[in-house]
Amino acid sequence: MTHKELISEMAQRLGLSQSKVSDLLDATVCELNEKLSENTQIFIPHFGVFETRKRSERISVNPQTQQRYLVPPSIVATFKPASGIKEQLKTMEEDGK
Amino acid sequence: MTHKELISEMAQRLGLSQSKVSDLLDATVCELNEKLSENTQIFIPHFGVFETRKRSERISVNPQTQQRYLVPPSIVATFKPASGIKEQLKTMEEDGK
Repeated sequence: MTHKELISEMAQRLGLSQSKVSDLLDATVCELNEKLSENTQIFIPHFGVFETRKRSERISVNPQTQQRYLVPPSIVATFKPASGIKEQLKTMEEDGK
Repeated sequence: MTHKELISEMAQRLGLSQSKVSDLLDATVCELNEKLSENTQIFIPHFGVFETRKRSERISVNPQTQQRYLVPPSIVATFKPASGIKEQLKTMEEDGK
Protein backbone atom coordinates (compact mmCIF):
# COMPACT_ATOMS: atom_id res chain seq x y z
CA MET A 1 0.00 0.00 0.00
CA THR A 2 1.52 3.26 -1.05
CA HIS A 3 1.51 6.46 0.96
CA LYS A 4 -1.12 7.89 -1.42
CA GLU A 5 -3.45 4.91 -0.97
CA LEU A 6 -3.04 5.07 2.82
CA ILE A 7 -3.94 8.75 2.83
CA SER A 8 -6.99 8.35 0.60
CA GLU A 9 -8.37 5.46 2.68
CA MET A 10 -7.78 7.35 5.92
CA ALA A 11 -9.39 10.50 4.49
CA GLN A 12 -12.51 8.46 3.71
CA ARG A 13 -12.44 6.81 7.13
CA LEU A 14 -12.19 10.16 8.89
CA GLY A 15 -14.22 12.32 6.54
CA LEU A 16 -11.28 14.71 6.12
CA SER A 17 -9.51 16.14 3.09
CA GLN A 18 -6.52 14.19 1.79
CA SER A 19 -4.23 17.17 2.35
CA LYS A 20 -5.32 17.36 5.99
CA VAL A 21 -4.65 13.66 6.49
CA SER A 22 -1.29 13.98 4.75
CA ASP A 23 -0.30 16.80 7.14
CA LEU A 24 -1.31 14.67 10.09
CA LEU A 25 0.62 11.65 8.93
CA ASP A 26 3.69 13.83 8.32
CA ALA A 27 3.35 15.34 11.80
CA THR A 28 3.09 11.86 13.31
CA VAL A 29 6.22 10.75 11.46
CA CYS A 30 8.10 13.88 12.56
CA GLU A 31 7.09 13.31 16.15
CA LEU A 32 8.08 9.65 16.12
CA ASN A 33 11.42 10.35 14.42
CA GLU A 34 12.20 13.12 16.88
CA LYS A 35 11.42 10.94 19.89
CA LEU A 36 13.36 7.99 18.51
CA SER A 37 16.41 10.21 17.99
CA GLU A 38 16.08 11.16 21.67
CA ASN A 39 16.15 7.45 22.52
CA THR A 40 12.58 7.74 23.78
CA GLN A 41 10.31 4.70 23.76
CA ILE A 42 6.92 5.44 22.19
CA PHE A 43 3.89 3.36 23.21
CA ILE A 44 0.88 3.30 20.87
CA PRO A 45 -2.03 1.29 22.31
CA HIS A 46 -3.46 -1.54 20.14
CA PHE A 47 -0.51 -1.15 17.78
CA GLY A 48 2.89 -1.48 19.46
CA VAL A 49 6.03 0.09 20.86
CA PHE A 50 8.76 1.92 18.98
CA GLU A 51 12.15 2.19 20.62
CA THR A 52 15.85 2.32 19.86
CA ARG A 53 18.20 -0.50 20.68
CA LYS A 54 21.98 -0.59 20.78
CA ARG A 55 23.50 -3.27 18.59
CA SER A 56 27.00 -4.20 19.65
CA GLU A 57 29.99 -4.60 17.36
CA ARG A 58 29.98 -7.94 15.57
CA ILE A 59 31.90 -9.87 12.95
CA SER A 60 30.07 -10.57 9.73
CA VAL A 61 30.98 -12.49 6.55
CA ASN A 62 30.66 -11.23 2.97
CA PRO A 63 28.58 -14.04 1.35
CA GLN A 64 30.26 -13.56 -2.04
CA THR A 65 33.89 -13.35 -0.95
CA GLN A 66 33.53 -15.19 2.39
CA GLN A 67 35.65 -12.38 3.79
CA ARG A 68 35.07 -11.55 7.46
CA TYR A 69 34.63 -7.89 8.44
CA LEU A 70 33.80 -5.92 11.55
CA VAL A 71 30.36 -4.32 11.80
CA PRO A 72 30.61 -1.31 14.14
CA PRO A 73 28.14 -0.87 17.01
CA SER A 74 24.93 0.87 15.98
CA ILE A 75 21.64 2.18 17.32
CA VAL A 76 18.61 0.80 15.51
CA ALA A 77 14.91 1.67 15.58
CA THR A 78 12.73 -1.28 16.49
CA PHE A 79 9.00 -1.96 16.58
CA LYS A 80 7.36 -4.48 18.88
CA PRO A 81 3.80 -5.26 17.79
CA ALA A 82 1.05 -5.23 20.43
CA SER A 83 -0.47 -8.55 21.45
CA GLY A 84 -3.67 -7.65 19.59
CA ILE A 85 -1.98 -7.72 16.20
CA LYS A 86 -0.16 -10.93 17.10
CA GLU A 87 -3.45 -12.61 17.95
CA GLN A 88 -5.04 -11.32 14.76
CA LEU A 89 -2.15 -12.63 12.64
CA LYS A 90 -2.18 -15.92 14.55
CA THR A 91 -5.77 -16.61 13.58
CA MET A 92 -4.84 -15.70 10.01
CA GLU A 93 -2.09 -18.33 10.13
CA GLU A 94 -4.49 -20.93 11.49
CA ASP A 95 -7.09 -20.08 8.84
CA GLY A 96 -4.28 -20.73 6.37
CA LYS A 97 -4.62 -17.33 4.72
CA MET B 1 6.51 8.37 25.91
CA THR B 2 2.95 7.45 26.72
CA HIS B 3 0.01 7.68 24.36
CA LYS B 4 -1.24 10.74 26.25
CA GLU B 5 2.10 12.55 25.93
CA LEU B 6 2.29 11.73 22.22
CA ILE B 7 -1.21 13.13 21.65
CA SER B 8 -0.58 16.33 23.59
CA GLU B 9 2.71 17.03 21.74
CA MET B 10 1.08 16.33 18.38
CA ALA B 11 -1.91 18.52 19.23
CA GLN B 12 0.49 21.37 19.91
CA ARG B 13 2.47 20.65 16.75
CA LEU B 14 -0.71 20.66 14.63
CA GLY B 15 -2.75 23.27 16.47
CA LEU B 16 -5.61 20.78 16.92
CA SER B 17 -7.58 19.63 19.95
CA GLN B 18 -6.27 16.56 21.76
CA SER B 19 -9.49 14.67 21.15
CA LYS B 20 -9.17 15.31 17.39
CA VAL B 21 -5.57 14.08 17.39
CA SER B 22 -6.56 11.05 19.43
CA ASP B 23 -9.26 10.15 16.88
CA LEU B 24 -6.74 10.52 14.09
CA LEU B 25 -4.15 8.35 15.77
CA ASP B 26 -6.80 5.69 16.46
CA ALA B 27 -7.87 5.81 12.80
CA THR B 28 -4.26 5.40 11.69
CA VAL B 29 -3.83 2.40 13.97
CA CYS B 30 -7.09 0.84 12.71
CA GLU B 31 -6.00 1.32 9.11
CA LEU B 32 -2.55 -0.16 9.70
CA ASN B 33 -3.92 -3.14 11.64
CA GLU B 34 -6.50 -3.81 8.95
CA LYS B 35 -3.93 -3.72 6.16
CA LEU B 36 -1.47 -5.88 8.08
CA SER B 37 -4.17 -8.49 8.64
CA GLU B 38 -4.68 -8.49 4.86
CA ASN B 39 -0.95 -9.17 4.49
CA THR B 40 -0.55 -5.78 2.84
CA GLN B 41 2.79 -3.97 2.97
CA ILE B 42 2.44 -0.35 4.09
CA PHE B 43 5.03 2.20 3.01
CA ILE B 44 5.32 5.43 5.03
CA PRO B 45 7.89 7.84 3.55
CA HIS B 46 10.66 9.10 5.87
CA PHE B 47 9.59 6.53 8.47
CA GLY B 48 9.57 2.96 7.20
CA VAL B 49 7.69 -0.07 5.95
CA PHE B 50 5.26 -2.27 7.89
CA GLU B 51 4.65 -5.76 6.57
CA THR B 52 3.88 -9.28 7.69
CA ARG B 53 6.35 -12.10 7.44
CA LYS B 54 5.88 -15.85 7.75
CA ARG B 55 8.05 -17.43 10.40
CA SER B 56 8.55 -21.13 9.80
CA GLU B 57 8.25 -23.84 12.41
CA ARG B 58 11.34 -24.09 14.60
CA ILE B 59 12.69 -25.92 17.61
CA SER B 60 13.33 -23.82 20.67
CA VAL B 61 14.74 -24.62 24.13
CA ASN B 62 13.18 -23.69 27.47
CA PRO B 63 16.07 -21.83 29.21
CA GLN B 64 14.99 -23.04 32.67
CA THR B 65 14.35 -26.69 31.94
CA GLN B 66 16.56 -27.00 28.83
CA GLN B 67 13.62 -28.89 27.32
CA ARG B 68 13.28 -28.64 23.55
CA TYR B 69 9.85 -27.79 22.10
CA LEU B 70 8.39 -27.07 18.70
CA VAL B 71 7.36 -23.49 17.91
CA PRO B 72 4.60 -23.62 15.26
CA PRO B 73 4.84 -21.48 12.10
CA SER B 74 3.52 -17.94 12.60
CA ILE B 75 2.87 -14.70 10.80
CA VAL B 76 4.51 -11.69 12.45
CA ALA B 77 4.23 -7.94 11.90
CA THR B 78 7.55 -6.32 11.12
CA PHE B 79 8.80 -2.77 10.73
CA LYS B 80 11.76 -1.80 8.60
CA PRO B 81 12.96 1.74 9.40
CA ALA B 82 13.62 4.12 6.50
CA SER B 83 17.23 5.02 5.71
CA GLY B 84 16.63 8.52 7.12
CA ILE B 85 16.11 7.25 10.65
CA LYS B 86 19.07 4.89 10.33
CA GLU B 87 21.32 7.81 9.37
CA GLN B 88 19.96 9.93 12.20
CA LEU B 89 20.59 7.15 14.74
CA LYS B 90 24.03 6.51 13.25
CA THR B 91 25.15 10.07 13.94
CA MET B 92 23.73 9.68 17.43
CA GLU B 93 25.91 6.60 17.90
CA GLU B 94 28.96 8.46 16.62
CA ASP B 95 28.24 11.44 18.88
CA GLY B 96 28.20 8.90 21.69
CA LYS B 97 24.70 9.87 22.87
